[in-house]
Amino acid sequence: MRISEEKRKNFYKITTLFVLTIGFISYLFSQNLVAQALKIDPLPSWNQGMTKTSIIEFVNRVTIKDSPEFVPKEDRIAVFDHDGTLWPEEPFIQMMFVKERLKSMVKTDVSLREKQPFKTVLEDSKHDFDSDEKETTMNLFAFASARMTENQYKTEAKAFFAQGIHPTLNLPYTKVAYQPMVELMEYLRNNDFQTWICSKGAIDFIRIISQEMYGIPPQQVIGSSTTKEFIKNDGKSVMWRKDELDLFSDQLMKPVYIDLFIGKQPLFVAGNVRSEGDIGMLTFSQMQDNPSFQLLINHDDEQREFAYSEPGNGSLNAAQKNSWQVVSMKNDWKLIFNSKRMF
Amino acid sequence: MRISEEKRKNFYKITTLFVLTIGFISYLFSQNLVAQALKIDPLPSWNQGMTKTSIIEFVNRVTIKDSPEFVPKEDRIAVFDHDGTLWPEEPFIQMMFVKERLKSMVKTDVSLREKQPFKTVLEDSKHDFDSDEKETTMNLFAFASARMTENQYKTEAKAFFAQGIHPTLNLPYTKVAYQPMVELMEYLRNNDFQTWICSKGAIDFIRIISQEMYGIPPQQVIGSSTTKEFIKNDGKSVMWRKDELDLFSDQLMKPVYIDLFIGKQPLFVAGNVRSEGDIGMLTFSQMQDNPSFQLLINHDDEQREFAYSEPGNGSLNAAQKNSWQVVSMKNDWKLIFNSKRMF
Repeated sequence: MRISEEKRKNFYKITTLFVLTIGFISYLFSQNLVAQALKIDPLPSWNQGMTKTSIIEFVNRVTIKDSPEFVPKEDRIAVFDHDGTLWPEEPFIQMMFVKERLKSMVKTDVSLREKQPFKTVLEDSKHDFDSDEKETTMNLFAFASARMTENQYKTEAKAFFAQGIHPTLNLPYTKVAYQPMVELMEYLRNNDFQTWICSKGAIDFIRIISQEMYGIPPQQVIGSSTTKEFIKNDGKSVMWRKDELDLFSDQLMKPVYIDLFIGKQPLFVAGNVRSEGDIGMLTFSQMQDNPSFQLLINHDDEQREFAYSEPGNGSLNAAQKNSWQVVSMKNDWKLIFNSKRMF
Repeated sequence: MRISEEKRKNFYKITTLFVLTIGFISYLFSQNLVAQALKIDPLPSWNQGMTKTSIIEFVNRVTIKDSPEFVPKEDRIAVFDHDGTLWPEEPFIQMMFVKERLKSMVKTDVSLREKQPFKTVLEDSKHDFDSDEKETTMNLFAFASARMTENQYKTEAKAFFAQGIHPTLNLPYTKVAYQPMVELMEYLRNNDFQTWICSKGAIDFIRIISQEMYGIPPQQVIGSSTTKEFIKNDGKSVMWRKDELDLFSDQLMKPVYIDLFIGKQPLFVAGNVRSEGDIGMLTFSQMQDNPSFQLLINHDDEQREFAYSEPGNGSLNAAQKNSWQVVSMKNDWKLIFNSKRMF
């Protein structure tokens, strides 16, 4: 049977059009033009108001091609504190891991039962070690994750996150990310920012969940670290964890480690009110010729999360003096967690 | 004047086809399909042979979707040593910068003339400080780039690279990258590897040129570092460089810093024969469940670059024992530099 010339031509036309349309649509999606054209709200969990408006205005200022303050993609670095900025710090989740580790160490060596810090952990499960002990929480983390290989540590930490439930929020630890901050990081990435974490918390602890919870790969996490050695063990080379704190990434050391790991001043930095821990990196981000944005989260939502303030009020004072944008969790955030409580 | 219905229809058809074609072509380019379809040689400066074949076979093994050894994109980390692996180390280019700094320090303070290391630099411009001085070359770098802010240092280092000419190759320092290695890094990036540098050299020195010379952003450079402080100077916060070596990223510390900065074991590591400096990171990359690739560059091309060997032969022995791929610059590389000598 012969197909008419006309029909054959039409078939080619339709096929060509179909292929080209698919290509074009793929291109539009890859360029993120569809979302922009449809004016999809990039921050749906943020209430309308000053904070949300100022974030979006800043991103437009530095990313729109004709803007006098346009910043090239490679300089769009955004750095986020972790505890209290991306997830709750009541209790300090890393300390829950340390306590589990200490308990399991006692199980394999009962003689530890009367020694510190094991004794305290066994007798007072609510003790937070933060205020009255000589060892800092970071030293305790180094201690509880030491004398093993890096791979053994990773297995332990992954097991903790696979099972752990937040004691008051009743959510798995992997579900307690602040949804508005997850959206903010995604919004920044969609505008070609590279998103980083810079935390006082342990670098190897955050790296276990940073990709899954925040879309941040391990190599974009900065934090306190444990001394390691690359040694031979039973004739095999291993990465060995020592009982020793190496980097301690807090306060004025945060900008130093941002400089060490990134080598650039971030355009965008977010931290929170509690211990003046983020003033250093917020200041570091502001002292540059490029326009920059500083966000400071205030925990004022006792009902949906926690309410606490800072002795001395240093962070909020610095925010006022330097025109940093303060986030009221109560007023600026439509919701805090994306998941319903389990029970 | 009325345009016929026929003509109007044709105009719409052509316009639509044009827009869709542009979209489709953009899509193809964005997916890197064009190069693959045209079978463009990804490593044109590499001679055909075992080395080139084994690199391409490895990349196919870990990147082709149906391969039993497929590795997801996020785990495709490639780490390169710098001096002797990506650019020449005869002389140590960082030391040329140190010498210029020392000379300029003497100019502003003549009393330094009789002190060390200034005296040696002024009297013996060829002295390399590597073998007979108590201070290592890294300590000298810390010394010569200290007592200034990070921004001041960056200005100095950029000025050095803007003017400096390699003394024997007669090329600007920014043009002495090994072209085959530049191609290799681009080839790996086109296959969704993230390319990093891990050097004994100063992190802040390499970061000045890493993007321009190798397409590697500053935040993907690991190296030895100078201690810094975030302090107030005349009432202004500054990142201050101290005269003190901090990280010393050589030998067995290379895997430790790869773990600190990246948090993953690289799939692909390249180093070179000279001081056994890269055996550690090549070993680290090999001890994993994923398939991995180790490349060791042997400087055996006296005519086009330099020829030197390693006392004790540790690197080549390790390569043989562990089946690392050895590159003969003389036989494997069609050309070494992409630029013609200036004179």
